[in-house]
Amino acid sequence: MAATPESTEFQTGPETEPGTERQNNNELRSSYQRVRKASELICEPLMIEDYGVQTMADVSPPKWHLAHVSWFFETFLLKPYLDDYREFHPDYARLFNSYYEQVGTYHPRPQRGLLSRPSVEEVYTYRAHIDEAMLRLIESPRMSDAQIQERLVTGLHHEQQHQELLLTDIKHILGMNPLRPAYREIETPAGSEQPLEFVRFTGGLKKLGADEEGFAFDNERPQHDIWQPPFRIASRPITNAEYMAFIEDGGYLRPELWLSDGWAAIKQGKFHAPLYWENRDGQWWHYTLGGMQPVDPHAPVAHVNYFEAEAYASWAGKRLPTEAEWETAAENLPVKGNLRSRGYLQPVAGEGDQQGVTKLYGDVWEWTQSAYAPYPKYKSPDGALGEYNGKFMCGQYVLRGGSCVTPADHIRRTYRNFLYPGDQWQFSGIRLAEDI
Amino acid sequence: MAATPESTEFQTGPETEPGTERQNNNELRSSYQRVRKASELICEPLMIEDYGVQTMADVSPPKWHLAHVSWFFETFLLKPYLDDYREFHPDYARLFNSYYEQVGTYHPRPQRGLLSRPSVEEVYTYRAHIDEAMLRLIESPRMSDAQIQERLVTGLHHEQQHQELLLTDIKHILGMNPLRPAYREIETPAGSEQPLEFVRFTGGLKKLGADEEGFAFDNERPQHDIWQPPFRIASRPITNAEYMAFIEDGGYLRPELWLSDGWAAIKQGKFHAPLYWENRDGQWWHYTLGGMQPVDPHAPVAHVNYFEAEAYASWAGKRLPTEAEWETAAENLPVKGNLRSRGYLQPVAGEGDQQGVTKLYGDVWEWTQSAYAPYPKYKSPDGALGEYNGKFMCGQYVLRGGSCVTPADHIRRTYRNFLYPGDQWQFSGIRLAEDI
Amino acid sequence: MAATPESTEFQTGPETEPGTERQNNNELRSSYQRVRKASELICEPLMIEDYGVQTMADVSPPKWHLAHVSWFFETFLLKPYLDDYREFHPDYARLFNSYYEQVGTYHPRPQRGLLSRPSVEEVYTYRAHIDEAMLRLIESPRMSDAQIQERLVTGLHHEQQHQELLLTDIKHILGMNPLRPAYREIETPAGSEQPLEFVRFTGGLKKLGADEEGFAFDNERPQHDIWQPPFRIASRPITNAEYMAFIEDGGYLRPELWLSDGWAAIKQGKFHAPLYWENRDGQWWHYTLGGMQPVDPHAPVAHVNYFEAEAYASWAGKRLPTEAEWETAAENLPVKGNLRSRGYLQPVAGEGDQQGVTKLYGDVWEWTQSAYAPYPKYKSPDGALGEYNGKFMCGQYVLRGGSCVTPADHIRRTYRNFLYPGDQWQFSGIRLAEDI
Amino acid sequence: MAATPESTEFQTGPETEPGTERQNNNELRSSYQRVRKASELICEPLMIEDYGVQTMADVSPPKWHLAHVSWFFETFLLKPYLDDYREFHPDYARLFNSYYEQVGTYHPRPQRGLLSRPSVEEVYTYRAHIDEAMLRLIESPRMSDAQIQERLVTGLHHEQQHQELLLTDIKHILGMNPLRPAYREIETPAGSEQPLEFVRFTGGLKKLGADEEGFAFDNERPQHDIWQPPFRIASRPITNAEYMAFIEDGGYLRPELWLSDGWAAIKQGKFHAPLYWENRDGQWWHYTLGGMQPVDPHAPVAHVNYFEAEAYASWAGKRLPTEAEWETAAENLPVKGNLRSRGYLQPVAGEGDQQGVTKLYGDVWEWTQSAYAPYPKYKSPDGALGEYNGKFMCGQYVLRGGSCVTPADHIRRTYRNFLYPGDQWQFSGIRLAEDI
Repeated sequence: MAATPESTEFQTGPETEPGTERQNNNELRSSYQRVRKASELICEPLMIEDYGVQTMADVSPPKWHLAHVSWFFETFLLKPYLDDYREFHPDYARLFNSYYEQVGTYHPRPQRGLLSRPSVEEVYTYRAHIDEAMLRLIESPRMSDAQIQERLVTGLHHEQQHQELLLTDIKHILGMNPLRPAYREIETPAGSEQPLEFVRFTGGLKKLGADEEGFAFDNERPQHDIWQPPFRIASRPITNAEYMAFIEDGGYLRPELWLSDGWAAIKQGKFHAPLYWENRDGQWWHYTLGGMQPVDPHAPVAHVNYFEAEAYASWAGKRLPTEAEWETAAENLPVKGNLRSRGYLQPVAGEGDQQGVTKLYGDVWEWTQSAYAPYPKYKSPDGALGEYNGKFMCGQYVLRGGSCVTPADHIRRTYRNFLYPGDQWQFSGIRLAEDI
Repeated sequence: MAATPESTEFQTGPETEPGTERQNNNELRSSYQRVRKASELICEPLMIEDYGVQTMADVSPPKWHLAHVSWFFETFLLKPYLDDYREFHPDYARLFNSYYEQVGTYHPRPQRGLLSRPSVEEVYTYRAHIDEAMLRLIESPRMSDAQIQERLVTGLHHEQQHQELLLTDIKHILGMNPLRPAYREIETPAGSEQPLEFVRFTGGLKKLGADEEGFAFDNERPQHDIWQPPFRIASRPITNAEYMAFIEDGGYLRPELWLSDGWAAIKQGKFHAPLYWENRDGQWWHYTLGGMQPVDPHAPVAHVNYFEAEAYASWAGKRLPTEAEWETAAENLPVKGNLRSRGYLQPVAGEGDQQGVTKLYGDVWEWTQSAYAPYPKYKSPDGALGEYNGKFMCGQYVLRGGSCVTPADHIRRTYRNFLYPGDQWQFSGIRLAEDI
Repeated sequence: MAATPESTEFQTGPETEPGTERQNNNELRSSYQRVRKASELICEPLMIEDYGVQTMADVSPPKWHLAHVSWFFETFLLKPYLDDYREFHPDYARLFNSYYEQVGTYHPRPQRGLLSRPSVEEVYTYRAHIDEAMLRLIESPRMSDAQIQERLVTGLHHEQQHQELLLTDIKHILGMNPLRPAYREIETPAGSEQPLEFVRFTGGLKKLGADEEGFAFDNERPQHDIWQPPFRIASRPITNAEYMAFIEDGGYLRPELWLSDGWAAIKQGKFHAPLYWENRDGQWWHYTLGGMQPVDPHAPVAHVNYFEAEAYASWAGKRLPTEAEWETAAENLPVKGNLRSRGYLQPVAGEGDQQGVTKLYGDVWEWTQSAYAPYPKYKSPDGALGEYNGKFMCGQYVLRGGSCVTPADHIRRTYRNFLYPGDQWQFSGIRLAEDI
Repeated sequence: MAATPESTEFQTGPETEPGTERQNNNELRSSYQRVRKASELICEPLMIEDYGVQTMADVSPPKWHLAHVSWFFETFLLKPYLDDYREFHPDYARLFNSYYEQVGTYHPRPQRGLLSRPSVEEVYTYRAHIDEAMLRLIESPRMSDAQIQERLVTGLHHEQQHQELLLTDIKHILGMNPLRPAYREIETPAGSEQPLEFVRFTGGLKKLGADEEGFAFDNERPQHDIWQPPFRIASRPITNAEYMAFIEDGGYLRPELWLSDGWAAIKQGKFHAPLYWENRDGQWWHYTLGGMQPVDPHAPVAHVNYFEAEAYASWAGKRLPTEAEWETAAENLPVKGNLRSRGYLQPVAGEGDQQGVTKLYGDVWEWTQSAYAPYPKYKSPDGALGEYNGKFMCGQYVLRGGSCVTPADHIRRTYRNFLYPGDQWQFSGIRLAEDI
C-alpha cells in the first residue's frame, strides 16, 4: 500500500488560518463558508440513523453537534448584532445550549441521544437559516467592529473543535455497535519502524503560551515566563508494538505501575486495553473509522487515557513531558503532520529516515503531566463566553499537538486540549520524556 | 366533536382471532399477512429518526420491535422447520433476542437505543426476508403439524403484543421529547359524565382461567376452581376528574394512603402525577399520541402505576379487584370497547346511558390486586418458549382488559397482562371494587 | 455429640402465650418482665462494640433494636395513657422510630449504624426508664381497658419479633466480620438422615387465617374460605446435602431454572450460594452463631432466598407450597420444634424415626409461593399502628413456621412472615410440595 | 472569655522534631514514646462506641487509625528487622493495611466501620505488643542503620498524620450524629477583627521544596528552581464574617462564580455551605469539637472545599495562591500558630495588632491553586513505601500550613497536604492572592 498523498477528503478550499488578524469581508465570508461546509462533509457518509445516537455521556449525537455550532452563531452573533434577526425555533436555545449557564437552562447532556426530533432534515434547515443570516451579518457594516470579528473567528474555531468531536464521536457510535460498520473506506500508508531516541533541550528562562498576535483561545494566554530545566523528549510517540510489549509484560496487572485512581478504575473494569482494541485469538485488532483492522505495530498507539500513559511511562522508566517541555520541543517546527486533511483519520506509522523530534502535530494528542490550570494572570472573558474554557480548569490534564482528526488550520504550538484522566475516546497517545 | 365511528386506522382486513383452532393454510396465510402488515402500518407516521430511540430501559426502539418479532419467527419456526432456510444475518440472533437465555446470548436491553445499524431500511428488508420464508413454510406440508401451527399462532400473538408496545413506546419517545410532537392527528368523541355505581356479584365456587378451547397463553391455564366471596365492582374506571380530586386532596402528600415502597418512590421523586401530565397555570394537560391536550375530565385516568391505583382506592375507601373478580364480572360481556381498532389511541369518555359494568375492555388496562403468579398446576412449556411467561412470575401485578392500543382480536376475558408496581408507561388505569 | 436437652438459654420463666385473652395485671406484668428480660439476655454475650454496627440496610444495630422496642411502648402506651409520663429524651422519638410516618419523621434506616451515641449504657437506662413507667401503667386502673391491654400485648409481640431480628442481625454483624467470631459456644445434636416423603392432603373448602380468639396480628385475619385442591407436601425441609447436590449439578449456572429477576441478580453477583457458606478446598463450611462449622448434611438448608428456593424446586421437579397448603398441613400438629428455646440457634438434623409432616415449626422459615397480600376483607387498624403490617403488602412472599431463633410462644399456625425474594439473611429454607 | 494560654492537652513532653537528623537511641525512644502516647491521649475522651463508626468512606473509625499506625511499624520495621518478632494476629495484616498493594490485599476502605472486632481493648493490646517490640528494636544494634532510622522517623510522622485524621474524623463522627455531642469542653480566645491587607513579594528565580537536610516527605523533594512573578498575598485567611457576606450575596446561587464540576456538585446537593454549618433562624451555628456554637465572625472560615475557596476568590475579584507563592510568603516566618498544641481544636480569631503575613501556620489548611503533582525529578521510593505519596498525584490540590489539629512538630514550610476538590471534612480554609 503506497503512501497516500494529501487526501482531498474534507478539503473545501485552501485552509488558511481563519482570523489570524482583522480580515476583510471577503476573507471572512470565505472562511465562514469553508468551515461550515466542512462540518457537513464530515457527516456525508452517515446514515440518518447515525445522526441521533449518544453512546455515552461524553459523546454527542452528530445531529446535536451540527445544531449546537449553529446555535453558537445564533446566540453570540445573530441575536445581539443582526437587526431584525428572526429566531429559528423558540426551543432550540434550550436544546442546543451545551453548558452556558449565563444564557439560560439547557437540555441535560446525557439525554441528547433521546431526541428523535428535530429531524436531521430540520437541523440542516436550521443550518441554512443560520448561514443565510450570518452572510447578511458578514456583509453588514457592523462587521468592521473588531469585537464582532473576533466573535466570528471564535465561532469558526468552535465549529472546528466540534468537527474533531464529530469524527471522534462518530467513531464511538459506530465502533460500539456490535456490527462494527466502517465510516468509509480508508487506505493508510505502510510506514516503517522508526528508532526511539531522546532529543536533548537546554533549559533556562522560557516563554510559555501565545503572544498577542493572531488568534488563540483565552486559555493559551497570557504568554509568561517559566524556568525550564534541561530535559530530553522522545523523537516520536510510543507505537502499538511498544504498547503491546507493556501489556504482555503484565502492565495491567501490576498495581505498582499505576496511579491509585487508575488502579481503582481497572479493578472496577473501566478499562483493560486501549479503547477499540479486541484480542482475537492472541492477535490485537482495533476498530478504526475504516472498520476493524489488525493493529499496525509501527503506528502510534491511540485511545489510551492518562492513567495508561502514565503507567506506560513508569514501566518504561521514563515520564510524561510537561506542557512547557512539549512547547519548547515544538519551538521551531512547522505545523505539519497527519492531521485531518490527510484523510487517514487514524494514526499512521512514520516513514523514511527522519531526524529530531517528529510527529509532534497530528496522529495523536499527546498527554502531558501538566494539570489543566490557568496561566498566571489569566482572566476569563466577561459574560457567557467566559464559560468557554475557564470553568473547566479542574481535574483535567493538558494534551498537545492535535490528532489525525484535527483540522490542519485549527492547531497551534500553544494549543491546549484537556481531558479527564480516565478519558479514552479521543485520539490520545503517549510521548515520553526524561530528566537530564 | 362528534363520536368517531370505527376508525379504519390500522385496519388491514377483518380482525378474526388468529388461530383459535386448527386452520387451513389460507386462513393462516391471511392472518399472518394481516398481523405483519399491521406492525408496519403502526410505524408509518414515524420519521426514520424515531425508529432508533430508547428513552428508558423499559422502552425499546420501534426498529428493534420490528426486527425482534421477525427474529421470533426465524428462531422458533424457520430455523427448525423450513428446509434450506438461509439465516438473514449472523449477528441478528444476538441483536434481536429479547431475553431467551436458552437460545444464546443477547444484546443488553438498556443498550438497544445505541444501535444506529442495522438501518431502518435493513430492518424492513429483514422483515421481507422473513415474510417470504414464512409464506413458503405456510405453504409447505409441514404446516399441517399441530405443534408448528401452534407456534405460528403464538408468533402472531407475540407480534400483536409488540404492536401494543410499539404504540406505548412511541408515545414515550415522542412524549419525553421537549418538543412534544404528535404521532398523528386524532379526534376523540366528547362523551359525557357517567355515574359511578357498584354492581353486585354473588360468590361461590367459580372457574378461573382459560379452558382448553382456542388460543390462550400458557399463563391463562389451566382453568381451575376458586372460592369467590360475593363482591361489588365499579361500573366504570376512575376518571381524570376523580383522580384530580385525589390530587387536590393532597393524595401525593399523605403517607398513610400509600404502600411503603410507593411512598419511598415518591420521596425519591420517581413519580408525582400520572405520566405525561403537566400542570400549566393550575390546569392539567397531558401528552397524547395526538399531541398535548387538556385532560378530559370524563375519560378514564391512564398511566397510573399500581401504587397510585392502590392509594387512590384507599383514599376512596374502596379496594382494587382481584383478577378473579374481574373475570367474574366479565363473564357474559362481549369483547368490545375502545381498543386499537377505534383509532383513538387514548381512553375516551363513556357515552349515552349505559347499564351494568362498562368499559371492561379497552381504554385502560385495569390494575388488579392479584400478584402475577402461576395458576395451580401451571407448567411452563419445554425449551426456550418456556421462558415466554413463567420466568416473570415474581414481583409483578396482573392487569386485565386491554387498552386503547390493544388489537381487538388479541384480547380475551382470561388475558393476563403484568407489570411491576412502579410502571406508568403503559395505558394502565383504575377500577374499584368493594366487599359486601 | 449428644443431643442437647431443652436449653436454658434465653429462658426467663415459663413461656406462656402473652395475651391470648384479657389478662389480669399479674399476668401482664409477668409477661412484660419476661419478654423485656429476654431481649437483654440475647445481648449478654455481646461486646459493647457489637451493639452499634449495621452491616447492610436490612440489619439494625442491636442497640437500635433495644431502644426501638422501648420507643414503641413509649409512643403507643406511655405518652397516650400514662398520666404525668415524662419523655426520656426529646430526640429519641426521631432516632428510634422505625417507619411510622404518622408519628413524625425518622432517622434514615441505612444510617442507623452511624450513631455512636446514645451509648449502650444510655440505651439500657432508657429501657429501665420505660420499664419503670410501664409497670406503673400496668398497675394503674386504665389497664383494664381492653384496647390498652391489646396494645400492650402487641408491644410484647413486637419486641419478640425484634428478638428474632436481634439474633438474625447479630449473626450478620459477626458473620460478615473477617474474623468470624462466635456469638457463643453452641453444641448441636447429631441427628440422622431422614427420608423425604410427600404426604397427601385432600382438598375442598378450607378456612385460612386466624379466627377471632386470642392474639394474632392483623395480617392473619380475617379467617376466610378458600378452595383447596388436593396436594402433597414434603415430610421435612430440604437438607444441606440435597442443596449441595443442586449446586453440584450446576444449579447456579443454568438460567432455565431461575426466575428472570433471580437470574439477573446472580449475574450481578448478588448471591452464589446460601449466605454464610464458604467453600474451603471443596468442602462447604458455614458461619453459625457458634462460629465456623462444616455444613451438616442432614440439617435443613438455611439462608436461601426465594429465588433459590424456587429454583431448587424447579430443579427437583416440584414446587413450593402455597401458604394455604402449609396451614392445611399444620392443622392438627402441635407448635413444637427447634425454636429459640432449644438454644441451638441453627437448624439441626432430624432425629429418630418420625412419621408424617415434621419440622413445620422451628429450624427454618419456609418460603411459600404466596405473595404477601391482604386477606379478603382485611382492614388495617386506624392510626399509626395501621402502618404495622398493611403497607408492606407489595413485592414480598410469605414464609411460615418460625425458625431456630423464633421465641416458642411467639409463633402460630396462622403466623405470616414476609420477605423480599432476594433476602437471604433470615433463617429461611425450603419445603417442597406437588400437585396430585 | 479570656485567651487561653498554651494548652497542655495532648502534650506529653517536649515537642521536638522527630528525626531531623540521625539520632541516638535515647532520642528515638523518647520521640517514639511521645508520639505513640499522643494518639492515645487524643482518644481519651471517646466512649467505646465512638471508636468503631465510619460516617463516610473518607473517614476511618478511631480504632482503625490506632491499629493501622501500629501495623505500619509492624510491617515496615518489626517484620523485616526485628529477629524473632512474633506477629500479633494473622488477619491484622489484611485488616489494617490501608492501601499498600505491594504488601498484599486489604479490607475495603468503605467497610472499615463494619468491624466490631477486634475490640477496642484488643486494639490497645495490639498497640502494647507493637510498642514492646519497637522498644526492643530501638535498643538493638540494627537501629544504627540509617535506613532503619529513617523508616522509624517516617513511621512517627505517619502516626502524626493519623493523629490529625483522628481529630478530623472524630469531629465528623460526633458532628454527623443528630445529638451533636461535644468531644470535650473547649474555651477559645475572643480575638478581634483584623484588617485584610495584601502583602507584596518580589518575584524572580526561587527555590521550591525541601532541601536534603532533616526530615521531609518524598513529595517535598527535590528542591528545584522556579520562576516566580511578583505577587501579593493576603495578610490573613478569610474569616467567617467575610464568607457569610459571600453567602448572603447569593454565592451558592450564581453559576458564573463556580468551576463547572463544583456547580454540578452543588446542583446534586453535595454541599451548600461550609461543612458543619447550620442556619438556625437566620443565625449561623456550627458544630465544633466543643459542641454547637455560633459562628465566630472573626475566626478563619474552615471546612470549605476547593470549589468554595475558588468561587469565593472569584467573587472577591482575587485568586488563590500557588504553592510556590505560599512557600515564598512563609520564607522567613517561624513555624508558630494555632496548631494542635494550643488545644483549641478550631480556628480562632486573630489577636492584637499584627503586621505582615499572619496565621500561615495552624488554624486552617490553605487551599492553593496548585494541582498536586510530582516536583521535577521526583522519584518515589522503591518498594511498598513508594506507594506512600506518589500514587495519589492525580486529581487533587495542594494545601499548605497545617491546621488547628496538626501537631506542632509535624508541620514544615515545605509540607504538602493534598485533597480532592470536593473535600470539606478537613480543616481547610482560604487565603487570597493577587497579581501585580
